[in-house]
Amino acid sequence: MSRPPGRKQENHKISRELFVLTYGALVAQLCKDYEKDEDVNTCLDRMGYGIGIRLVDDFLAHSAVEKCRSYSETADMIAQVAFKMYLGVTPTVSCSSAAGNEFSLILDKNPLVDFVEELPAERASLCYCNLLCGVIRGALEMVHLAAEVTFLQDRLKGDAVTEIGIRFLRKAEERKHKR
Amino acid sequence: MSRPPGRKQENHKISRELFVLTYGALVAQLCKDYEKDEDVNTCLDRMGYGIGIRLVDDFLAHSAVEKCRSYSETADMIAQVAFKMYLGVTPTVSCSSAAGNEFSLILDKNPLVDFVEELPAERASLCYCNLLCGVIRGALEMVHLAAEVTFLQDRLKGDAVTEIGIRFLRKAEERKHKR
Repeated sequence: MSRPPGRKQENHKISRELFVLTYGALVAQLCKDYEKDEDVNTCLDRMGYGIGIRLVDDFLAHSAVEKCRSYSETADMIAQVAFKMYLGVTPTVSCSSAAGNEFSLILDKNPLVDFVEELPAERASLCYCNLLCGVIRGALEMVHLAAEVTFLQDRLKGDAVTEIGIRFLRKAEERKHKR
Repeated sequence: MSRPPGRKQENHKISRELFVLTYGALVAQLCKDYEKDEDVNTCLDRMGYGIGIRLVDDFLAHSAVEKCRSYSETADMIAQVAFKMYLGVTPTVSCSSAAGNEFSLILDKNPLVDFVEELPAERASLCYCNLLCGVIRGALEMVHLAAEVTFLQDRLKGDAVTEIGIRFLRKAEERKHKR
């Protein structure tokens, strides 16, 4: 049944299965394109960065969140609002440095790897979901927060959980890291 | 807030924005990889085919639909159940041949192109959403229906609507087209 003409079809959710399989096709294509896992990882991170800098507007428009006053609040916001909104899961957050600028997002279940059994032996260094790191990095940069975002553990590599590490860069480090 | 451990996180929906931007990154990568639009189109169709043959199990499991008794019922099922389930939109269906084996799915709004203004001049022959044709073709093949699936109109190319043509192949044609 088609909708009445003129009525805007507003449905901001799509099936995760389609997304997961499309993401798999993207990673497979990059594995064809690049021999080295590191190059695939870099490319996924760069693509994610491009997505993150565009997605942040959508996030701010739809989440109606207030400005975070600390790194800790920001990490909670990423886990509890952004992950929930975009991937339908909520990672656990833990602070992993005394300085209070390093956080871990721990995923019991990674929605991006539903159809992936394990990485092929020749792709042992592949960070399959590295796009996510780029997305977080890009989105943070758009709200003037420089950060390093990397996978610290990955169930696809036999770890017990999947853990994404976010290290917010202090002002001095920001200058040093500025490209 | 993390969920209680052991409880399966079941959320089969994700944000369309993330999907659309990720799909855009995939198309952009293929445009880097292949100079000719036709090669990008073929690659998207082939990727979609691989997705369709896997997605059909998910579709049958979650839709609880009964077996279609005609091409017309099949076309309606694709539009009203599958598109709705996976992309959150419902195309209008029209039969476009007296023989009753050709159908058009007409999309007033294509959810895959939210962030795409228009195709670059040098990519005028690109079928940006060709993945969808492959998905439909692959899924149909898994239920023993051979079909040709192509874009007949595309709003990205200035057409008034986006129209996907499905031509079910008769038995004799099936043999002829079999690879």
